[in-house]
Amino acid sequence: MTTHHRAEPARGEGPRRRRQIFDATLEALARDGFESMTIEGIAEKSGVNKTTIYRWWPSKSALLGAALIDAPLLDLPMPDTGHLRGDLEHLVDGLVRLLTTQPSGAVAQSVLGAAVGDPGLATYIQGFFADRLAREQVVIDRAVARGELPPDTDTMTLMDLLAGAVWLRAVFRRLPLDDDFARRTVSTVLDGVRPS
Amino acid sequence: MTTHHRAEPARGEGPRRRRQIFDATLEALARDGFESMTIEGIAEKSGVNKTTIYRWWPSKSALLGAALIDAPLLDLPMPDTGHLRGDLEHLVDGLVRLLTTQPSGAVAQSVLGAAVGDPGLATYIQGFFADRLAREQVVIDRAVARGELPPDTDTMTLMDLLAGAVWLRAVFRRLPLDDDFARRTVSTVLDGVRPS
Repeated sequence: MTTHHRAEPARGEGPRRRRQIFDATLEALARDGFESMTIEGIAEKSGVNKTTIYRWWPSKSALLGAALIDAPLLDLPMPDTGHLRGDLEHLVDGLVRLLTTQPSGAVAQSVLGAAVGDPGLATYIQGFFADRLAREQVVIDRAVARGELPPDTDTMTLMDLLAGAVWLRAVFRRLPLDDDFARRTVSTVLDGVRPS
Repeated sequence: MTTHHRAEPARGEGPRRRRQIFDATLEALARDGFESMTIEGIAEKSGVNKTTIYRWWPSKSALLGAALIDAPLLDLPMPDTGHLRGDLEHLVDGLVRLLTTQPSGAVAQSVLGAAVGDPGLATYIQGFFADRLAREQVVIDRAVARGELPPDTDTMTLMDLLAGAVWLRAVFRRLPLDDDFARRTVSTVLDGVRPS
């Protein structure tokens, strides 16, 4: 019965239908906002009893923190194409798909909109971005090992440039992203823009 | 009396205390949201009669569209340092200041948060970003004329990479931006990241 006494399950642990619970949590946040979303509603949507949720996550905050990191809706698989350019283009394409298809796009944008309006959510968003950066580090480490990047590469700057360009184009500007977007964007960051 | 019949004043025209009206409009949007903000409240805050506002902008939408583009709060002066690197570093530093000092940071973030939650505002945000890109084009045109950039430079991609990196770091990650941030970020985009 030790699970009853843990504040939060370790990553990857959790009840049956854990992934459904996480997606339902983010959908509830996007639809209702953090104040109005309820554990009851999330339980019903994900097909579990609310006591199951409370057993693993003692509060809405704890559940949201876990959902942001592990919800399938916001999951971007890490590519391993054998070269940096291919890996980064896959990452950019994946983020484009995440932000421009539904329901993931609406959820990601609403979560961020909610965090902007509610500083209390900012900590969870920070945790989400820190987790994603840690996952992305493996792509950079492999590129350094292959000699494609210098060992002191600033992973956060590299990733923020690329992800930021996707957010600006797809969400802020609401412009269509053509098939060549990932290639052009990655090429600018890898090769620079000065005349050769 | 022709002004009574114009739907919207041309850019730069408008009543006395025009700039105060625009800043008050964005502050009201950030504080109250688009549905709740009122012309009356904006008039009171900016020290004019509400009929003055209605004479120039017949609706809240028209006023917001004009305010986003011309409010002093969101104004970033275009630099002219004589070289591209200096100009881009000034632009990045300016956006960092805009997003991380108050009240401009809270206003910019709230406007974007509101637009994410209200697709009806998206058109105004699009107009804002299109206007800023048009202003930034002069920086790129000068760099092309000096031979610092190829003539087919993709201005939007260049600007979205830089502005996106600022948004990611300052707003999404909520991490402090050190004094070297602009130099590093611009250097990555201009010079690329591959080992020399």
